[in-house]
Amino acid sequence: MEIKYADRVDSIKPSAIRELLKLTQQPGVISFAGGLPAPESFPIEEMKRISVKVLEEQGRSALQYSTTEGYQPLREFIAKRMNKSGIDIKSDQILITNGSQQGLDFSGKLFINEGDVVICESPSYVGALNAFRAYMPKFVEVPMDDEGMKIDDLEKALIENPKTKFIYVVPTFQNPTGRTMSIERRKQLIQLACEYNVPIIEDNPYGELKFGDEEIPPVKHFDTAGIVIYLGTFSKTFCPGLRIGWVAASPDIVRKYVLAKQGADLQTNTMSQIELAKFIELYDFDEHVERVRNIYRNRRDAMLNAMKEEFPASIKYTYPDGGMFTWVELPKGIDAADILKKSLECKVAFVPGSSFYPNGGNENHFRLNYGTMSEDLIAEGIKRLGKVLRAL
Amino acid sequence: MEIKYADRVDSIKPSAIRELLKLTQQPGVISFAGGLPAPESFPIEEMKRISVKVLEEQGRSALQYSTTEGYQPLREFIAKRMNKSGIDIKSDQILITNGSQQGLDFSGKLFINEGDVVICESPSYVGALNAFRAYMPKFVEVPMDDEGMKIDDLEKALIENPKTKFIYVVPTFQNPTGRTMSIERRKQLIQLACEYNVPIIEDNPYGELKFGDEEIPPVKHFDTAGIVIYLGTFSKTFCPGLRIGWVAASPDIVRKYVLAKQGADLQTNTMSQIELAKFIELYDFDEHVERVRNIYRNRRDAMLNAMKEEFPASIKYTYPDGGMFTWVELPKGIDAADILKKSLECKVAFVPGSSFYPNGGNENHFRLNYGTMSEDLIAEGIKRLGKVLRAL
Repeated sequence: MEIKYADRVDSIKPSAIRELLKLTQQPGVISFAGGLPAPESFPIEEMKRISVKVLEEQGRSALQYSTTEGYQPLREFIAKRMNKSGIDIKSDQILITNGSQQGLDFSGKLFINEGDVVICESPSYVGALNAFRAYMPKFVEVPMDDEGMKIDDLEKALIENPKTKFIYVVPTFQNPTGRTMSIERRKQLIQLACEYNVPIIEDNPYGELKFGDEEIPPVKHFDTAGIVIYLGTFSKTFCPGLRIGWVAASPDIVRKYVLAKQGADLQTNTMSQIELAKFIELYDFDEHVERVRNIYRNRRDAMLNAMKEEFPASIKYTYPDGGMFTWVELPKGIDAADILKKSLECKVAFVPGSSFYPNGGNENHFRLNYGTMSEDLIAEGIKRLGKVLRAL
Repeated sequence: MEIKYADRVDSIKPSAIRELLKLTQQPGVISFAGGLPAPESFPIEEMKRISVKVLEEQGRSALQYSTTEGYQPLREFIAKRMNKSGIDIKSDQILITNGSQQGLDFSGKLFINEGDVVICESPSYVGALNAFRAYMPKFVEVPMDDEGMKIDDLEKALIENPKTKFIYVVPTFQNPTGRTMSIERRKQLIQLACEYNVPIIEDNPYGELKFGDEEIPPVKHFDTAGIVIYLGTFSKTFCPGLRIGWVAASPDIVRKYVLAKQGADLQTNTMSQIELAKFIELYDFDEHVERVRNIYRNRRDAMLNAMKEEFPASIKYTYPDGGMFTWVELPKGIDAADILKKSLECKVAFVPGSSFYPNGGNENHFRLNYGTMSEDLIAEGIKRLGKVLRAL
């Protein structure tokens, strides 16, 4: 039989990265490809204690259906933690989602009619682009520099595209570039969003993984109009396997996200939400995050130091102050996909950059993730990659 | 600011039942309203042992990202169990979802363009209707009798609606009616679906909860053309809090569901999938399901016996051979919502029937769930409800 799918199915493409991951998971490959967090950072021993405790104390409710909005003590912790980072938010403005990826899908579902415009950074997070694509928007890319989205270009994009439904940004330690939007730009972004009456989706999975002392308040901190929809996650600060993220927004907006969640899967895993809340109750979350940061900081240093040694001077790359990624720019005319082929021959993997550009092009970029591999393997992998690059 | 949502947002309605649940969860209310499984059936002690074992043996992978398709040993178990119920399926045709609700959402996403037709039983599962509504279909209801969907009416609906994208059925111990489609009708349903080239979504959350000895093969059992998309769940046989369900379909179709899952939330909770697989490895799942069945069978008996005693003879209701629900028909002109008000005064709750009809009407029906309350409370609740009904 010939199946008649919905029109949107033609837009739902396999994630280039998820497909690539299958290749790179072969034994012996040093992978800088996926966005996998460091498994050394997972609180396995603590989880053993917690899971038994949760089942003992509240087993019946931990295994039962619960509310769509999420486990109340967890929502309260999130609200308080956001308050600490300078965001005025209450627990009833928090919806717990299956990772922040689900918040991205709901953003597409709630805002995008076919042909509407999504403005995003160029390049942008490929998982978000894939989530939005299912709702058939047109993507308008705004160029970046080391301070993030260029504001003049953003305003031009807003003027030229009255059907813009939202501006999607990963302002802090961005995936894929590792760049962070300056405070000045954050304020200007809010100002423009208000002026053109277009909400901002602030996706902030990496903000907690900061290596320096400088405080960079989230864009949401500067939001007095309720125009920023904030997506958070515990995938990097706790672990991704439990799939716990959240949406934080003004009450009327979050209410729409709750309705989307009801239809989509009723609620997030009850047991995992309670376990996470129990971890926060029994352990010092700040201390835990500090431990996680140290792991990533050391790996960032290992990779960036090795790149300095091993990469030819003609190759540019970003120096991230947090998060998991650095972004490499090859001389124009060189295709990162060709480099990947050669690099895989030496058992080193990364992600070519073009899939991070929703409208294609920019084949001379690639993304390196320093989060997953040990420092030794990072040094060895960069050495091999440097050899490939120097042979150009 | 005034937010411009997508057009579909007007179609996303709060679930009448989820809203009602908030009312009925007040202390002292005997609730026959929600679809909550019996918490006595949850394997809490076993889960304690399992969660520690999983973290000890494979903590790092249990807390890490994993594949979109799902945990392979779990997919294999599901395929084998479906094989046992007479369905020819392989593990790579299984996608693990966040409960079967997510399979419903993806069905809407993959098949429905605005204005397309979804054919469903009348009445039908309200959670499915809500999931589909986000994609703006037109619902065409097919009347039922005690053997399920009336096949002549189904054919009429297919002829009259060439834009039909799928037929949605809960053929076994249906929610809300407790009815089961006869084997003859199952065969006819497949035949019509093939003839009109329209896929069937078979939603089967209750099939395992059967009280008698009669074997009722799933509709998918009769499917030689690959036209049935089967949705299963562990929410009733294991527990709903872990949110584990699945989609089983022909390889090309399941591939589309995998892509929808990638964009929607990357993957289902890794830890919970491994825990469930470990439960299946260490314990006898058949024995466990038998224990669960016994709980529900006793409660079915408690409720139906009490109804026989306490309800006036003018009131008709179904006699379910499995599952969690019986469906009550009041004399025409009586609104179940009015009865609910009186019933809540005596602290007894149920769900009025009209929300199960996508196009409204049929106010003289309501649904009773016998799954959640103990036998004593069932007897007491039905006694109170009988009093309200006899006073009509």
